[in-house]
Amino acid sequence: MSSQPKIIRKLIESIRAHQTFCVVGHMRPDGDCVGSQLALTLALRNEGKDALCWNQDPLPQKYRFLDPDRIIEQPKAGKKFDCVIATDAATFDRLGSVGECVQDRQVLLNIDHHESNTRYGDVNWVSAKSPSTAELIYRLLRAGRFAITKPMADCLFTGVSTDTGSFQYPTTRPATYHVAGDLVARGANLALICDEVYQSYPLSRARLLKHLYSTFRLTDNNRIAYFWLKKKDFTRTGAESADTEGLIDHIRDIEPVIVACVFEEVEPELTRISLRSKSHLVNVSTIAAQFGGGGHSAAAGATIPGKPLSVQRRVVAAIRRVLQETHQTQCKN
Amino acid sequence: MSSQPKIIRKLIESIRAHQTFCVVGHMRPDGDCVGSQLALTLALRNEGKDALCWNQDPLPQKYRFLDPDRIIEQPKAGKKFDCVIATDAATFDRLGSVGECVQDRQVLLNIDHHESNTRYGDVNWVSAKSPSTAELIYRLLRAGRFAITKPMADCLFTGVSTDTGSFQYPTTRPATYHVAGDLVARGANLALICDEVYQSYPLSRARLLKHLYSTFRLTDNNRIAYFWLKKKDFTRTGAESADTEGLIDHIRDIEPVIVACVFEEVEPELTRISLRSKSHLVNVSTIAAQFGGGGHSAAAGATIPGKPLSVQRRVVAAIRRVLQETHQTQCKN
Repeated sequence: MSSQPKIIRKLIESIRAHQTFCVVGHMRPDGDCVGSQLALTLALRNEGKDALCWNQDPLPQKYRFLDPDRIIEQPKAGKKFDCVIATDAATFDRLGSVGECVQDRQVLLNIDHHESNTRYGDVNWVSAKSPSTAELIYRLLRAGRFAITKPMADCLFTGVSTDTGSFQYPTTRPATYHVAGDLVARGANLALICDEVYQSYPLSRARLLKHLYSTFRLTDNNRIAYFWLKKKDFTRTGAESADTEGLIDHIRDIEPVIVACVFEEVEPELTRISLRSKSHLVNVSTIAAQFGGGGHSAAAGATIPGKPLSVQRRVVAAIRRVLQETHQTQCKN
Repeated sequence: MSSQPKIIRKLIESIRAHQTFCVVGHMRPDGDCVGSQLALTLALRNEGKDALCWNQDPLPQKYRFLDPDRIIEQPKAGKKFDCVIATDAATFDRLGSVGECVQDRQVLLNIDHHESNTRYGDVNWVSAKSPSTAELIYRLLRAGRFAITKPMADCLFTGVSTDTGSFQYPTTRPATYHVAGDLVARGANLALICDEVYQSYPLSRARLLKHLYSTFRLTDNNRIAYFWLKKKDFTRTGAESADTEGLIDHIRDIEPVIVACVFEEVEPELTRISLRSKSHLVNVSTIAAQFGGGGHSAAAGATIPGKPLSVQRRVVAAIRRVLQETHQTQCKN
């Protein structure tokens, strides 16, 4: 057995030894973050602990069904906690304003699945092999013999499902499917979860998609696809920043496309770019790095000053160079 | 234990007793159909059987990666089989022209998960609780101790995944996730499968989506959404009928929408409608039935003669009536 069971035992001991808890997550929380936080908080309350959940930013609309009793709440001023547990947050900074307010605590536990996690806690369980933090929380609860109730199963299933792209990402492990099966057996409401999370989006997003499909451009023999999101597109469609999640996949998934790029206006002369690559030969983080950004091989981004058209020209040229190099490498081999 | 293990034993005995096989599926085969057929055929070949796979209609482009050795092929004229196995076909008619050509066989085995299956085989294993036929084939292979190789795991995973909407449909059972986990452990290539099946579509489909987002209409306080697909839209976009799969979900998934409808021109005065309902209070099969069609509560369809605008008016009026009745029922309660 690896050292993981030992770290899990240490976490459980720490939880058993304390009484007041704050379970915190990262800024702009996603399904894995809130699912992990809520399930853990419910487990602590079931054990008679005084526990609440807190994030800097509000719970996104589509995850509100997970918190009908509103256990995510801002603590009263001056409230102190024996134990703070951070879930799904790779760095202390990612906690945002919540981090400052929970400085005064006896112990900080850090449970996360990001490889880049900086081990900022007093106890750190970082398992990069796990495709979601929710899967780690599931293992923690099982190991500690905490009851997993139906509402907790809903939260954990949501985390596992969203951070694996509905069990599609290559990081999804056999164990992940077994965890999902056990959560459904424990009553996770698949119909409700999938309806809320995957089959429901505001009219404003449909308007954004109309904009996307009317304006996206293909270039370089359809190997590069891109579109712009200007501030006026948000005003006109009534869309919020959260509505842009996954928009880039619509152009990425077109067969001949190798690199997809979204240009988003931050200021008139400041543009945020998001890049996706579909080929293991094309590493978009090297493109993002040329503009002071970063990321992974398949997904990267940067924020670039300059006139919009000039930014577009430079970015498309940088993508083109990488595609040409790839082509030459392939021809040589 | 139920009678299922007995039926599985009977199927295995029948397979062991024969030498030449044809594994057939339904017309317009989907991922579950071809995944089931191919996995079973590979298993039979591994056992030294003479087995081939055959469908009336060609393998859709996005599933071609499952059959690199082209084991789906039309049998030579006059070829006879000891045993024909039909997978995922609810009726004998659904086999199309393939059905006629395999009439001359010793035994017909029927393995399917459709509740409406007519038990047309000599041995019938119909398990409506299973969300996919691939899950049944998996159980059959395990029970018969057939080896499940990597290519077979790819085929079965594709079937299980596509017929559960990537593990999202409420029919997905705990066992389904466990089967998927075991298939990934046996080497199913998740990255390849999900890329081919879910993350890749032709440019023509992007053009169809542009058409959809530019022309869809909302009415009745955004509770009804619909769009038209005319023959000219296919010509103009270069799209095929297969490219329309799932298009209706784009309007169904808009939050306020309760009923979504696609009108598809079959002939200038003949229209096929597809209906989806998001509310358990609204049964679209009753709407389809008014026009001589049918289906399920959440998904139904019909083919309606008449001038297009008149068809549209009558269908939208029928949807409106059902929504109004629902509203009245809710108010009364």
